[in-house]
Amino acid sequence: MIVIMKKDATPSQLTNVVACIEQMGCQAHVSRGEERTLIGVIGNGRPFDHEKIEQMDGVEKTMPVLRPFKRASREFHPQNTLVTIGDVVVGGNEIVLIAGPCAVESRDQMLGIAEAAKEQGAHMLRGGAFKPRTSPYSFQGLGEEGLRILAEAREKTGLPVVTEVMQPELVPLVTSYADVLQIGARNMQNFALLHAVGKAQCPVLLKRGMMSTVEELLMAAEYILSHGNSRLILCERGIRTFETYTRNTLDINAVPLLKQLTHLPVVVDPSHGTGKWELVQPVSLAAIAAGADGLIVEVHTHPDQALSDGGQSLKPETFGNLVASLRRVAQAVGRTA
Amino acid sequence: MIVIMKKDATPSQLTNVVACIEQMGCQAHVSRGEERTLIGVIGNGRPFDHEKIEQMDGVEKTMPVLRPFKRASREFHPQNTLVTIGDVVVGGNEIVLIAGPCAVESRDQMLGIAEAAKEQGAHMLRGGAFKPRTSPYSFQGLGEEGLRILAEAREKTGLPVVTEVMQPELVPLVTSYADVLQIGARNMQNFALLHAVGKAQCPVLLKRGMMSTVEELLMAAEYILSHGNSRLILCERGIRTFETYTRNTLDINAVPLLKQLTHLPVVVDPSHGTGKWELVQPVSLAAIAAGADGLIVEVHTHPDQALSDGGQSLKPETFGNLVASLRRVAQAVGRTA
Amino acid sequence: MIVIMKKDATPSQLTNVVACIEQMGCQAHVSRGEERTLIGVIGNGRPFDHEKIEQMDGVEKTMPVLRPFKRASREFHPQNTLVTIGDVVVGGNEIVLIAGPCAVESRDQMLGIAEAAKEQGAHMLRGGAFKPRTSPYSFQGLGEEGLRILAEAREKTGLPVVTEVMQPELVPLVTSYADVLQIGARNMQNFALLHAVGKAQCPVLLKRGMMSTVEELLMAAEYILSHGNSRLILCERGIRTFETYTRNTLDINAVPLLKQLTHLPVVVDPSHGTGKWELVQPVSLAAIAAGADGLIVEVHTHPDQALSDGGQSLKPETFGNLVASLRRVAQAVGRTA
Amino acid sequence: MIVIMKKDATPSQLTNVVACIEQMGCQAHVSRGEERTLIGVIGNGRPFDHEKIEQMDGVEKTMPVLRPFKRASREFHPQNTLVTIGDVVVGGNEIVLIAGPCAVESRDQMLGIAEAAKEQGAHMLRGGAFKPRTSPYSFQGLGEEGLRILAEAREKTGLPVVTEVMQPELVPLVTSYADVLQIGARNMQNFALLHAVGKAQCPVLLKRGMMSTVEELLMAAEYILSHGNSRLILCERGIRTFETYTRNTLDINAVPLLKQLTHLPVVVDPSHGTGKWELVQPVSLAAIAAGADGLIVEVHTHPDQALSDGGQSLKPETFGNLVASLRRVAQAVGRTA
Repeated sequence: MIVIMKKDATPSQLTNVVACIEQMGCQAHVSRGEERTLIGVIGNGRPFDHEKIEQMDGVEKTMPVLRPFKRASREFHPQNTLVTIGDVVVGGNEIVLIAGPCAVESRDQMLGIAEAAKEQGAHMLRGGAFKPRTSPYSFQGLGEEGLRILAEAREKTGLPVVTEVMQPELVPLVTSYADVLQIGARNMQNFALLHAVGKAQCPVLLKRGMMSTVEELLMAAEYILSHGNSRLILCERGIRTFETYTRNTLDINAVPLLKQLTHLPVVVDPSHGTGKWELVQPVSLAAIAAGADGLIVEVHTHPDQALSDGGQSLKPETFGNLVASLRRVAQAVGRTA
Repeated sequence: MIVIMKKDATPSQLTNVVACIEQMGCQAHVSRGEERTLIGVIGNGRPFDHEKIEQMDGVEKTMPVLRPFKRASREFHPQNTLVTIGDVVVGGNEIVLIAGPCAVESRDQMLGIAEAAKEQGAHMLRGGAFKPRTSPYSFQGLGEEGLRILAEAREKTGLPVVTEVMQPELVPLVTSYADVLQIGARNMQNFALLHAVGKAQCPVLLKRGMMSTVEELLMAAEYILSHGNSRLILCERGIRTFETYTRNTLDINAVPLLKQLTHLPVVVDPSHGTGKWELVQPVSLAAIAAGADGLIVEVHTHPDQALSDGGQSLKPETFGNLVASLRRVAQAVGRTA
Repeated sequence: MIVIMKKDATPSQLTNVVACIEQMGCQAHVSRGEERTLIGVIGNGRPFDHEKIEQMDGVEKTMPVLRPFKRASREFHPQNTLVTIGDVVVGGNEIVLIAGPCAVESRDQMLGIAEAAKEQGAHMLRGGAFKPRTSPYSFQGLGEEGLRILAEAREKTGLPVVTEVMQPELVPLVTSYADVLQIGARNMQNFALLHAVGKAQCPVLLKRGMMSTVEELLMAAEYILSHGNSRLILCERGIRTFETYTRNTLDINAVPLLKQLTHLPVVVDPSHGTGKWELVQPVSLAAIAAGADGLIVEVHTHPDQALSDGGQSLKPETFGNLVASLRRVAQAVGRTA
Repeated sequence: MIVIMKKDATPSQLTNVVACIEQMGCQAHVSRGEERTLIGVIGNGRPFDHEKIEQMDGVEKTMPVLRPFKRASREFHPQNTLVTIGDVVVGGNEIVLIAGPCAVESRDQMLGIAEAAKEQGAHMLRGGAFKPRTSPYSFQGLGEEGLRILAEAREKTGLPVVTEVMQPELVPLVTSYADVLQIGARNMQNFALLHAVGKAQCPVLLKRGMMSTVEELLMAAEYILSHGNSRLILCERGIRTFETYTRNTLDINAVPLLKQLTHLPVVVDPSHGTGKWELVQPVSLAAIAAGADGLIVEVHTHPDQALSDGGQSLKPETFGNLVASLRRVAQAVGRTA
């Protein structure tokens, strides 16, 4: 932490700030310049209450030196974290492909898509039983019935299942059916939910909020890690920008940036990241080329009958083409798929 | 709804789309142009499943004609909604001032601020007992103890209390202490929570998400209204943009826009909207000049000791100055304060 | 400037950085912490080449302490700058109203609007002779003929004229007709143009780019000031955000922020800032309440026949209503209009 | 174009709008619905003045059906455009690599980098002689002396040269030295400059503005094409978002989207797109995987001595590593490099 004093700060204001820093158990190194006096706060590695200092008379502003996340940081934990789900390892050399519909709509739909996705190369299944929808008048998901269908799809295909949980009190229920709990973009800062999944005995896939910074994503990860759950996968799914041709702007920079800042696995959702099925394949290949550990892709046997997100879903055969291209790109960057 | 066919759509694709629209109980008016064929979908006033149509072969895109919210719209409900809380009426001619600390930190702090805020002209109190914090290492609020302190502050001052609820299962607890339930910006699309407060017998103050459009705010309002609670106040509190000098960019356009689109009262939070106490007064005056029905302002007797948001809190006497200026501006636009 | 060394920086890397800082004529104050070593760079008041340091081995990042603008800053020049144009003073106690059409379309149109705007209380006229248009197929302005019409409108009304200049080589021509040169939002970082108007003997109205931060606006101002022209007015006209109901998001925070950071007058363009004529009045009042020194408003006698921006133009009588309300708000904040 | 009438529009208002549409030489197809009446405007393929209609009494809004660009669209020109510069073809099967420093700083610097870049696999050179800089106090480029050095670098290496032109009146001068004229991001909507390079006998590389939509980029392209220059290359270089860890957010979606919407070649600038040299390689590979036709990369032999953008420049050997990886990824997607 660095404290910058105002141009006209008085000596006694400086003395007070230094005293306050020292009361917090830190050291204060004062540098007097012609235009400003700076104080380097040297300390204890603990998160420091910069707001308190910022309020003191004579202080212009404070600037953090260290990043505010710790358990999520690669500095703290240099090796890649591997998250193992049955036979699947996320974060290792092999690219992991998670595929399935936006929402579980019926037993036939889900089982059909699950078989088709497996056949085309998927390693895990996705499908929403509880759906966050902008409109109260849209389909809200099948609820527990959807979870039962997902469990049946897992039984039939042998593929583990990722599904969203939207409320802390439903974590036990969803955990009893799912292999991975998904935290959706709108809930990335639902701290009660982060707390609940942090206590769960189940891996978590945490999606970046559509208007959250990479740092906020890592702080959300820090919540889960600090409550004891280290089986955590991060997911870049596009951010909200001024561009309107696409549903979101997939932040490709975030992929290598996250791999540098954190030890956690990073997967990419090209379906929400673009919102247009025609863009899913090129953007998926881009994600792998940029270093992503996997993809979570919307696949539907009948996109034109999907109750949600049909416009960004791939048909199974298109997904199959994606997998074939993706294997070549994975190999080109020293990965397998 | 308008459907735009692709340039090269075949006659049979057009026939299929028309058939599908008619199966939904709507009428299809086809306009053949040189470059594109359009279909005007005329119907039933019900929300229409545009995604289904958008997936059909030969369709380029669909465009909505009507706004997707109904109960929240002024078209549906032309008169202003008045939300009455004890003696306070929000949405009427009088500007309502809600003041208090970001977080309840202690009994002394809260009671001191409450008395001071009342003395300077506040009509209601604010204060967080449950705090959403980006970092798991930051102060998370006093919980139920905080609620008890807020209730005591109400008793001493006679001012109603607004406080945030972050989890559906805590709605009954918070309702038992508070006069208004606040939904924070990060929870604007926490649909389970919207459902829960929609069922509550308590007014709600719904903050716009920092990443949410005005339309999404109104859709979130629609959730609450459609679950039966019409005692709803909207709050503009700044959106996230590329500008970094200020914490958020207060969307002043949203104030008259909301007053035009909806019958619900609109208050403004200049503290989060700017993040800097020096900007709170001018932006508060701007909000009133633009037609806001009230303000929710962070006030603290010792901002430099605040456990959160000290940098954007006013001291009581500064708040008093704001109230004095605000009364003049309110009068200039035909309101009282 | 503060330099933060990497966690694993070696002593010789530190020595090199210190040496480099000293070669630049600055002093280096080293603070060794447990996690990082910091260097406070104390110096000469000159802009410092942080990129050079940031490239050196062992350096993690650098952080500026001082703002990068100087001539534009209130720290450097505490008194308000007053820009005098004929009888009009911008930046004083009186609110200045600039009104007129987006584009000069014909002699009759411009003279009619000019007379009507004057009658309703305008102090200056606006009107584009050279128009920046997104599409090459849109009306591009009347060019010099438009300038001549503007000059005639000034003669008839006695009101000074603001008009846009888009190219450095046209600065002499536009200066020969106009009283104030407008730099449009798209040209805020057209540095050759900033240079040219910085050399001109004519006041300048500099619009904030729709993609520009407040700091970048002040750096653009710095270009003009550093080339010798200090008759400069800044204009907030809305920024681009994710919100699509309005054309831009007027950054009301920027008004008091600019008044705090700089001595230059600040006017607001509510027409481009909202893009909807129904929002122009409330947002105009907000701007004045927030401390703006004036407004630049699109007014057209026949908005439905305007060749551009009709949808955000006020009719003269609506402008008159705005002026009446505005006078009350101006008085409420201690200004006249 | 579709016109949506207000709910309470009168029959005579509808008649007037239809008459106005027909006066413009178009046909009006009226669809009367329960909630709204729509008018499909069927026409002449000419750009239509929607603002005029939008101003008419009884009109709620208008919605475009066709995209506003024509010469730039793939619909108008289905085959890929190939831009040939000496031996280099941009837009064909081979990935084109443009490398060099941000700015030409000296003869030795430029010639050294040019030789090193060629050795590592570059096909063309980049280097700025005229530099747009946010601060008037930063290095502004060597001007014509820089152009002479670039020409010498071309002579020595045989590689064509891309360099920025910032002012219309300098187009002839820059054309006399350069092989490709670059329009920088800040000038994407400098229409006078677009006009000037549209008239030039020289290929153009047009960078997307940092806060410009894909549609605006294509409209800027339309300016150049409509003035007669069809040797045009588009460049995605990152957009401005709320994320601050990276300098810009590279819009990877824009790559396949542009390839779909337009026939023009698309190159990517990973240096500005990320602002951090460590991210340049993964993001470059992503760009190629997504379908880009080439890269423009900042390479510097001594990034720590660069006068600008050192932090995002690769050393020649790092660029060489990038080229090696890129060849594998290019091959994986059926391209050569």
